[in-house]
Amino acid sequence: MVAEIGGQWIGPTQNRIRALAESLGIQAFDTYNTGDNVYFRDGQRQRYNAQAPLTGPVPPDPTGVAEAVRFLAQLDQMAAEVPREAPWSAPKAAEWDSQTVETFKQANALTPGGRFLFDVSTQGVFASEPRDLSLLFYLFYISAAGDEKTPGTLERLVNTAGGAQEKRFVGGSQLVSVRVAEQLGRRVLLNSPVRRIVQDRTGVRVEGDGFAIRGKRAIVAIPPTLAGRIDYEPVLPVLRDRLTQRFPQAGVIKCEAVYDRPFWRDDGLTGQAVGDIGPVRITYDNSPPDGKPGVLLGFIEGENATLWGQRGPADRKAAVLDNFATYFGEQARRPLDYFEMNWSEERYTRGCYGGVLSPGVLLRFGSAIREPVGRIHWAGTETATIWNGYMDGAVQSGERAAREVLGEL
Amino acid sequence: MVAEIGGQWIGPTQNRIRALAESLGIQAFDTYNTGDNVYFRDGQRQRYNAQAPLTGPVPPDPTGVAEAVRFLAQLDQMAAEVPREAPWSAPKAAEWDSQTVETFKQANALTPGGRFLFDVSTQGVFASEPRDLSLLFYLFYISAAGDEKTPGTLERLVNTAGGAQEKRFVGGSQLVSVRVAEQLGRRVLLNSPVRRIVQDRTGVRVEGDGFAIRGKRAIVAIPPTLAGRIDYEPVLPVLRDRLTQRFPQAGVIKCEAVYDRPFWRDDGLTGQAVGDIGPVRITYDNSPPDGKPGVLLGFIEGENATLWGQRGPADRKAAVLDNFATYFGEQARRPLDYFEMNWSEERYTRGCYGGVLSPGVLLRFGSAIREPVGRIHWAGTETATIWNGYMDGAVQSGERAAREVLGEL
Repeated sequence: MVAEIGGQWIGPTQNRIRALAESLGIQAFDTYNTGDNVYFRDGQRQRYNAQAPLTGPVPPDPTGVAEAVRFLAQLDQMAAEVPREAPWSAPKAAEWDSQTVETFKQANALTPGGRFLFDVSTQGVFASEPRDLSLLFYLFYISAAGDEKTPGTLERLVNTAGGAQEKRFVGGSQLVSVRVAEQLGRRVLLNSPVRRIVQDRTGVRVEGDGFAIRGKRAIVAIPPTLAGRIDYEPVLPVLRDRLTQRFPQAGVIKCEAVYDRPFWRDDGLTGQAVGDIGPVRITYDNSPPDGKPGVLLGFIEGENATLWGQRGPADRKAAVLDNFATYFGEQARRPLDYFEMNWSEERYTRGCYGGVLSPGVLLRFGSAIREPVGRIHWAGTETATIWNGYMDGAVQSGERAAREVLGEL
Repeated sequence: MVAEIGGQWIGPTQNRIRALAESLGIQAFDTYNTGDNVYFRDGQRQRYNAQAPLTGPVPPDPTGVAEAVRFLAQLDQMAAEVPREAPWSAPKAAEWDSQTVETFKQANALTPGGRFLFDVSTQGVFASEPRDLSLLFYLFYISAAGDEKTPGTLERLVNTAGGAQEKRFVGGSQLVSVRVAEQLGRRVLLNSPVRRIVQDRTGVRVEGDGFAIRGKRAIVAIPPTLAGRIDYEPVLPVLRDRLTQRFPQAGVIKCEAVYDRPFWRDDGLTGQAVGDIGPVRITYDNSPPDGKPGVLLGFIEGENATLWGQRGPADRKAAVLDNFATYFGEQARRPLDYFEMNWSEERYTRGCYGGVLSPGVLLRFGSAIREPVGRIHWAGTETATIWNGYMDGAVQSGERAAREVLGEL
């Protein structure tokens, strides 16, 4: 049985990761989405249709939803004004990069229900709180969730059917990396962290504990915050270094409980819930294609990832299962197995889903994101202009960096 | 002749750096402050008394100043509600850490003159723009600019007489470090960057290129963003690592022009100017105590440091001298010597005056600032509760970390 603890979904307009997976013989299948989602707020549990034909899934909170419809449209319209190649050149870049998303929320979402939906969608998409994010970065990220011709929408980021959580890979998304690595063979060095990159007029030398490799060009494809921890000779230019000082990883803990079968399906539930209780505010059915076994996935995100990451594993597990029971019934308390992954603990990741930006960074340092430094090129999903932060963006960034290098060889 | 390119001033309530300097036989002298300051805005140059007995120096911009008086009082009052040992526990911590200082400015400074004074004071104190800073961090920084009993004020941060720019050290502030290093003798290793810190049950090993030193405890006293670039074994806890991902250094270029004498004094000028033209918006007389030679110091800060740091040195020098000429007359165009320091270029500093915080960081990760990690203790001015960001804070942090370690030995 495979149940992913890392990036796992693909959706419409994510054409690069889909094509790469297809070329490697990896199949996609639909995220389980039959029946009703659960909406839990203010102590009340309600159900709503995950497949409503015209509106899509709409939580049963009329006031909040009316407000959400308004701010979704407003944000999409603003996002369409942000050029994905150069968000800092948007007409209102300075205004939007001078405020947090929380400031926008306070001004534009006035009801408790609307604010709740705003918070939970921000936590779900960015693994961050609205106060952690620049409004310009947030709009750029929405804009990037589209194809070359059309900017994305916030709805596409949050939705399952028709959205970024639409499909999963049979056998797990890591198969993509594993099969690419198989093709590369001995050229892939595992367990070999790079400590230093030295450039001179004729080439570049990449050094780690007990190894040094010389080449004409190097592509650094780790998150900017980790790229900043490599020692560079000569020292990196000011703009690039200041950018990596300001590009932290967001925070998420993925928690999964395994049951003999996906019992919530018997009750007509999708396994998707949105709730206002901690630690788990968003869940999915993460079972394999045949539903054997049943797997419930809960996300602990943003502030909750910080708070609950400091608790002991037994406490955390008990609280997660308690949330699952609230959303899906008492059976959830007795899983066959339970596992979790706090990406902030991983030495060579230190947070997920990706890097996020506070106010002032895109405007002043954004132009350094993809700018090569001599023989060093930068890839990784944080450098993507399409589906930034997603697996699709990682593939786009790799293709772009490869083109840059090929153009120089 | 000594003219500093780094931290150089001390002022009232900075009792620790003053005591340390005195104990090393280093004298302080008053920053030159006789006569008028220059105020240059909207193409108009005006003078105002730097020593006005009751009000202190007040720029000749009645509307802007009236507004500044209002927001200074408001910010001081808010700052007094921020406990310096734990800013995240202020009653309004969440509200203040959810917005940028720019958002506060937009709501509370309505005139062009008031906004200009707000911007230039933020640039001068933080080497940052208001959009780069959390309002909670900004208030904490004001609060920290006092003694144990009384919180600081924004006025004390910006003033010369009675403020943080009141006095300088005869022979330069580096004398403090040099004399402490002399006392420590061979225990100080220069040119030996630390690459890795390894802890086990019995001690800690500090490793660099070609050396390894074992001890019972280690104190890391570099800026948090640089501390994050050391490799730790075992890996740092989540909260500490996430903090160092979010604690960038601000940006300043110090530019100094040397003249045979401080000619502006003949004209009754202090050498202090505030202007709205780039790159230099703030200047000081940085001559030695005897005024031989005359030295003008110009600061390029915040956004200007980024923009002008990317220009060539000849362009930048020409623009700086042009600003000096606008403020102090044509003689400023012909210095005997000119030198500058861009702190963001320095491999082991990467920005000044110190680390600054965006919204959301103090609230969620602030408690990790001074929290020891096993045998590793944290010092440096970014960890200070009194005069954070200043030389005085660096001394406070060192004394505190030393006490921590002594308590454990």
